[in-house]
Amino acid sequence: MKQNIYDHPEFFHQYQKLRQAPNNYNNLLEQPALKSLLPNLSNFKILDIGCGMGEFAYFCIENNAQHVTAIDVSKNMLEIAQREHSHPNIDYYLQAIEDYDAAPDSFDCITSSLSLHYIKDFNAVIGKIARMLRPGSIFVFSVEHPIVTARKTMEDNWIYDDSGTMSHYAIDNYHDEGLRERTWFVDGVVKYHRSISTIINTLIAHDLTIEEMLEPLPNSQAIEKLPSLEKEHRRPSFLLIRARK
Amino acid sequence: MKQNIYDHPEFFHQYQKLRQAPNNYNNLLEQPALKSLLPNLSNFKILDIGCGMGEFAYFCIENNAQHVTAIDVSKNMLEIAQREHSHPNIDYYLQAIEDYDAAPDSFDCITSSLSLHYIKDFNAVIGKIARMLRPGSIFVFSVEHPIVTARKTMEDNWIYDDSGTMSHYAIDNYHDEGLRERTWFVDGVVKYHRSISTIINTLIAHDLTIEEMLEPLPNSQAIEKLPSLEKEHRRPSFLLIRARK
Repeated sequence: MKQNIYDHPEFFHQYQKLRQAPNNYNNLLEQPALKSLLPNLSNFKILDIGCGMGEFAYFCIENNAQHVTAIDVSKNMLEIAQREHSHPNIDYYLQAIEDYDAAPDSFDCITSSLSLHYIKDFNAVIGKIARMLRPGSIFVFSVEHPIVTARKTMEDNWIYDDSGTMSHYAIDNYHDEGLRERTWFVDGVVKYHRSISTIINTLIAHDLTIEEMLEPLPNSQAIEKLPSLEKEHRRPSFLLIRARK
Repeated sequence: MKQNIYDHPEFFHQYQKLRQAPNNYNNLLEQPALKSLLPNLSNFKILDIGCGMGEFAYFCIENNAQHVTAIDVSKNMLEIAQREHSHPNIDYYLQAIEDYDAAPDSFDCITSSLSLHYIKDFNAVIGKIARMLRPGSIFVFSVEHPIVTARKTMEDNWIYDDSGTMSHYAIDNYHDEGLRERTWFVDGVVKYHRSISTIINTLIAHDLTIEEMLEPLPNSQAIEKLPSLEKEHRRPSFLLIRARK
């Protein structure tokens, strides 16, 4: 999480272009899945980890949350958040979850969209999240799917046959957890791969009860807008979990 | 489950040879993982679904279970079970789980080793299992890992490069749940693929709480006995879950 690729000028330029296109994987696939896992947010105090440009924090306020604490490690992202999604009931902080702390039982819901695969010490962060949740409340998060993060090579995991047809998706190194260096707009984007059982068992070890797991599929309107989403039927890009303290 | 490949003469001959070798995937990888998930079985009434040759039912009695109801669809398997693992406190029945029934809260533990991927209606069977478990008791099972069952082709999922080196494992058709026809000793072995989220959410829908998930790895002694187990680091063969009613 302390990696801050989002403040790399070339990366950020490319990332903004991607996210400004309305038809991207986040808007069409990941965000609808994440929102489907949310409880009723009325009067909730929420912590959003890796808030990025603040769209989700703003969504929470629009859905009657009382207050959102939104943290991110990227100055670039938070500048946009402050500009485009500022609200008296949202506090944006330039901070990594590893360095953030709040009193036990501070939040009615904690969320994180596609940021926990940047975290090195998953166990410590989940322990902190569990402590900050009030009993009975909900933790909802998405990560890149372990099927996608597993393979160590920098090559494309989609394998093509001689005729140029996409033959299958490549998986490897599944149990070799840890650092994965990828090229995503720029070289050297660093992520952490963890197995599904590590993710599940870490939540359970911190007394979080698994309530639902999603490996989201696009609906037909989404595929019409972004045909590459069809590939989600062949292997999932994202893993989402709702867990209750 | 009603498929009964184990009574196919050629299949059964080959399967027996495989299982009689002490160094196989079941003995070295799957069974140790399954047993690690068991509660203390003392005085327990146990239902073992897909009991095969009865080794596991006998193990339960050796570990102080009061009684094991052991069911299987294969006459061949049950003949061996009766011959090699008979015990006054084990009842073997030639029956599919789909056709079996018991009063609610009948069992202190329900187990199933590598049989639920033969089940067509997973939801109905999990519902039945949840009903037959007494409140607070445990369901432990293993299945072939969804990463392994996903791809629809009959070809080997291990992909080799031109030099004959194992390059990666192929996954595809992940969200296309249902029938998979495979060649395993003989043609036409039928299994059912389900996504991890379907497995998890089905358990939860029947009020079973996920307590632990395993994607087992071999230890170094196991790899010494059966070097091909090394591949488990690259992709998991099995998925195991302990859930509590």
